[in-house]
Amino acid sequence: MKARILALSGGVGGAKLARGLARVLGAGELCVACNTGDDFTHLDLAIWPDLDSVTYAVAGLADDERGWGRRGETWQFMAALRELGGPDWFRLGDQDLALHVWRSARLRAGARPSELAADVCARLGIAQTLLPMTDDTVRTRLHTDAGLLDFQDYFVARRAQPRVERIEYVGAATAGLPGPLSQAIAAGWQPEAVLLCPSNPWLSIDPILAIPAWRDWLSGLDCPIVGVSPIVGGQALKGCAAKLMAEFGLEVSAAAVARHYGALLDGFVIDRVDQALATSLRADGLGIATCDTVMRGDTDRERVACAALDLAAELRRGGA
Amino acid sequence: MKARILALSGGVGGAKLARGLARVLGAGELCVACNTGDDFTHLDLAIWPDLDSVTYAVAGLADDERGWGRRGETWQFMAALRELGGPDWFRLGDQDLALHVWRSARLRAGARPSELAADVCARLGIAQTLLPMTDDTVRTRLHTDAGLLDFQDYFVARRAQPRVERIEYVGAATAGLPGPLSQAIAAGWQPEAVLLCPSNPWLSIDPILAIPAWRDWLSGLDCPIVGVSPIVGGQALKGCAAKLMAEFGLEVSAAAVARHYGALLDGFVIDRVDQALATSLRADGLGIATCDTVMRGDTDRERVACAALDLAAELRRGGA
Repeated sequence: MKARILALSGGVGGAKLARGLARVLGAGELCVACNTGDDFTHLDLAIWPDLDSVTYAVAGLADDERGWGRRGETWQFMAALRELGGPDWFRLGDQDLALHVWRSARLRAGARPSELAADVCARLGIAQTLLPMTDDTVRTRLHTDAGLLDFQDYFVARRAQPRVERIEYVGAATAGLPGPLSQAIAAGWQPEAVLLCPSNPWLSIDPILAIPAWRDWLSGLDCPIVGVSPIVGGQALKGCAAKLMAEFGLEVSAAAVARHYGALLDGFVIDRVDQALATSLRADGLGIATCDTVMRGDTDRERVACAALDLAAELRRGGA
Repeated sequence: MKARILALSGGVGGAKLARGLARVLGAGELCVACNTGDDFTHLDLAIWPDLDSVTYAVAGLADDERGWGRRGETWQFMAALRELGGPDWFRLGDQDLALHVWRSARLRAGARPSELAADVCARLGIAQTLLPMTDDTVRTRLHTDAGLLDFQDYFVARRAQPRVERIEYVGAATAGLPGPLSQAIAAGWQPEAVLLCPSNPWLSIDPILAIPAWRDWLSGLDCPIVGVSPIVGGQALKGCAAKLMAEFGLEVSAAAVARHYGALLDGFVIDRVDQALATSLRADGLGIATCDTVMRGDTDRERVACAALDLAAELRRGGA
């Protein structure tokens, strides 16, 4: 593995930073490991929302306006599926579908998830390494006031409305690192920095950290681990992080996210609107950088990527 | 079963007559049993070319200009599949794909083919009964000078170019009638006429006739069996029937098709250009009707449908 930087990512928010990182780093210098807890089987197709979001973003194929899926996407399949009485609660674009259909056929034929991810990167001209967090099956399930729900049932079908009491990551305890990462580590590879993307800590990053092999390896690393806050000014930029924090009785703030990651974290990038938090976070021993972390276009994504990389470099040099 | 008329059909050519029959008969008066020997699994999807062609034709969704698939079809899935390096030798339209994906998921969940066919009819507002020839698996395989080939490999991937020596219908010997037909027969149902659509006799109708349960039931029927010739003026209107006949050492003519069906046939509709054949066919004991059998639009399809129905009615009355 040639990568210098390893980013852990969920879907949409993480994908934006991943794109920024891919643009400011050299070819092959970035490896992104994506949450697979949201993966699910729908219409017998293997749907991998987070890895696909990161893939489309890094390949420059993402639809920035819609915020998910591919640019120039069409919906003829969905219209015909609806006509046939098929399930239409999860939208699958005509182009996007190719990835699911082709991948599902190859998985059934015995291919490993990380192998398929590498093939897709090669096909789409992605010079970076994109990986699922594991080649094993891990599924995020939520204990809610509407019962025990699969992630997509909670997040898409029920629009994240049920109150969450507890989250479990089924299969995480026995899951391994993805093949290419295991092999690289066995061959002595170490990243210069690990970045935690501004993804939902409980739904996107925790599934990765719930895998003992990941947590053990990250804890033993001799390199800075730097997060980017998904909470800006007391609000989540995307998704349901703020709602979850409130349901868990946590203060909705970047500081609470940093405390959630705890000792794992060496540095944290927070938004300029949260600058007031810097002093107490530094007092907790964290390196802190501030910037405008809202990412609307590639310039924004590059700025946040640089802030995270600069903070990591500074921490490597022993500063911040 | 309310149907008065049972048609046996392949794909494109048969679908045209099926549409004509559906238009001239009353709601529910037609049952079409479709060849499933061409069915295959592609990208882990259950593709049923003949039943789908008939379904789209009868529902008024068929693309008459292209000659197969759905009208207004788009190809975004195929473009994305190609980009990913997936197999692109078999074209799947974005709308068409919904049928394959939804059906495949339901088949894996245990649904019977004839059940799925009935559901699709209900969803698409088809008042007629469309059935697979069997709920069991039958596969047409061709012994050719390029080896033993699956149907779609021969027909689509190799464009029917290899020379065919022999055809087998794997699974036909043990296949049963489709569920709804079995039940109707058990309840005493009999059609007023059976029509053999102008489909390829060897590739579309013979797979049905290769099923002993079909042949036994058809032989015992007390109603006329009327074919429509797929050969007009010594040429096949569609597909490779003429090429196969030549390879089998047969004269390429409507008369040779009638001889191929042999004692099963009571009547035969031939094209006006083949009128010269009528006398000898009648001498063989067949009821003969002639009309312009080339079907370009619905008027043509209704004309051929009426010719076949009229001939059958005449034969029922003991004439022709």
